[in-house]
Amino acid sequence: MRIERLQKYIFEKGLDAALIKRRENLFYFTGSSPVLGGYLVVTPDESVFLVPELEYEEANETSKVPVEKFKTSMELFDKLKSFKIENLGIEESASFGFVNSLREKVGVKNFESIDEIIREMRIIKTREEIDVIKAACKIADMAMMVAVEEISEGKREREIAAKMEYAMKINGAEKPAFDTIVASGWRSALPHGVASDKRIEKGDLVVIDEGALYKHYHSDITRTIVVGNPNPKQREIYEITLEAQKKAVEAAKPGMTAKGLDSVARSVIEEYGYGDYFIHSTGHGVGLEIHEWPRVSQQDDTELKPGMVITIEPGIYIPKFGGVRIEDTVLITENGAKRLTKTERELI
Amino acid sequence: MRIERLQKYIFEKGLDAALIKRRENLFYFTGSSPVLGGYLVVTPDESVFLVPELEYEEANETSKVPVEKFKTSMELFDKLKSFKIENLGIEESASFGFVNSLREKVGVKNFESIDEIIREMRIIKTREEIDVIKAACKIADMAMMVAVEEISEGKREREIAAKMEYAMKINGAEKPAFDTIVASGWRSALPHGVASDKRIEKGDLVVIDEGALYKHYHSDITRTIVVGNPNPKQREIYEITLEAQKKAVEAAKPGMTAKGLDSVARSVIEEYGYGDYFIHSTGHGVGLEIHEWPRVSQQDDTELKPGMVITIEPGIYIPKFGGVRIEDTVLITENGAKRLTKTERELI
Repeated sequence: MRIERLQKYIFEKGLDAALIKRRENLFYFTGSSPVLGGYLVVTPDESVFLVPELEYEEANETSKVPVEKFKTSMELFDKLKSFKIENLGIEESASFGFVNSLREKVGVKNFESIDEIIREMRIIKTREEIDVIKAACKIADMAMMVAVEEISEGKREREIAAKMEYAMKINGAEKPAFDTIVASGWRSALPHGVASDKRIEKGDLVVIDEGALYKHYHSDITRTIVVGNPNPKQREIYEITLEAQKKAVEAAKPGMTAKGLDSVARSVIEEYGYGDYFIHSTGHGVGLEIHEWPRVSQQDDTELKPGMVITIEPGIYIPKFGGVRIEDTVLITENGAKRLTKTERELI
Repeated sequence: MRIERLQKYIFEKGLDAALIKRRENLFYFTGSSPVLGGYLVVTPDESVFLVPELEYEEANETSKVPVEKFKTSMELFDKLKSFKIENLGIEESASFGFVNSLREKVGVKNFESIDEIIREMRIIKTREEIDVIKAACKIADMAMMVAVEEISEGKREREIAAKMEYAMKINGAEKPAFDTIVASGWRSALPHGVASDKRIEKGDLVVIDEGALYKHYHSDITRTIVVGNPNPKQREIYEITLEAQKKAVEAAKPGMTAKGLDSVARSVIEEYGYGDYFIHSTGHGVGLEIHEWPRVSQQDDTELKPGMVITIEPGIYIPKFGGVRIEDTVLITENGAKRLTKTERELI
């Protein structure tokens, strides 16, 4: 059980309690996600989920942890004070203002980060989590199909994105996992070219990067298409990117490091002389957040393990000319990586 | 100029510098909003916007403040260290982890909140800001028209929301200002009933609360409709809510407090005996954030001034029976409140 593992950690670290406030962590530990937020207090032997009065009924129905309500922030701080916490485990994202209030109004003396234990837990997905991520990936595949059907000369990037996001929502997504990228022509060389009013032109490379948020979990996929016939340079950078992506998907397996996986994709692109144009890391973990651990980059030594869900998304970006990125969300299994997004990867 | 006003504040408070990190504040002070974020350093006599290398070109084109790039977080902290900052003004939202890094790697000794000065500046909108908010409100009005046309027996709430959000995007919105609420039947009694898979039934009250994000600014509108003929109780709570909303819009003017405005709406609902069913505040400021200052609640004594943009959104929520909310985004002018969202308010 998740709470028990956190309690063990608190006990071992000599903390009086942990206080959790980030939406995705609240959902992870309680199964509940109040719109107005909440505060999960975990001590070595008890846990309570404090929520604003307006959220009480719903939280009480969905939370695996006992729920109590508060009316005002004064009441919240009084409740926290009753735990007599001197040493508190807290998320690194907790705000400066909130930490000050805990010091002044609750009497907390020392703060320690609990990010590492939460990261260690969340980085391995359970069967249930994987099923939800698969469903989110299926919605992303459907949205990609819409993009491929809709993209044509003269249409605005924004219009394509609007149709994709409509399809996501109709198919059960809460919303897009992030601002949908439809980046055409020169804009395809921008790694974050959120759909704009630019019209798609004949001969454009179009990078489409999208995902769905479904039952609190994310998916992430990128495809690149050419409007009309690709020219030799477009075809070249497409084939190199595809080779890098395929090799990395084939190579990914337990025991390898995230850094090592980044190197697999990067070395393909470097061998063809485009290393300077692959200006980001190969991927990132996906789950309750769109970007989470591990980072598939030269800075992350995390060992890949079964149950991790990551993206593999090499790209080549040539300023003014255009760019290519090919990305799948994959699951690390005992037998290697399994693609959860399944849209064809060949150039169309 | 915005930066100059902040510099004057820093100087008067005896701070060595202010460090700004929140996306909306970065946009407010620099005119630039890098996807990967950035760090604005302001001292009494200089300012520099530090952005990740990938964002340099775009930031350099859009920022009113000189831009410098950093490659790694080490380089970022080194650059910050060169300012020799002991007393730093910081946003209260700055994270515990970041503040620790500033203490350890930059040598900052004291942290002071700069939220108050930023709040004071942002609470009064300029002509240019008001024009953008008006455009965002116009998109919200269009989306509401789509909702009114689309809502009918048998359709799912999610489908209505998907069509509204499609219309927003096609009409220029970056995205919805928040998760679109389409709450029908018993769900209309939930103040935050984000569109679900529930099918709309004949006789349902349907609360539609939506807004658009347009060029970094938000809009916010709510209407409630009845599918078919309203019953007497539905009509009663609708008319009371409408009276409260209209009286508050008519009453809002410079010199009044936010609390006083809340009382205008609240007293109408209380007089009819529904005070216990109006379970939230009357409104909130709208701008670069969907919820900002002032809060139109019993807790906020802020004096209303020309240039403030707020919502006025009383509601009545009767558990199991259903709810009504009517909301406009309004601008405070010398001559009173001007509605920026213009959809009809009568029951349909």
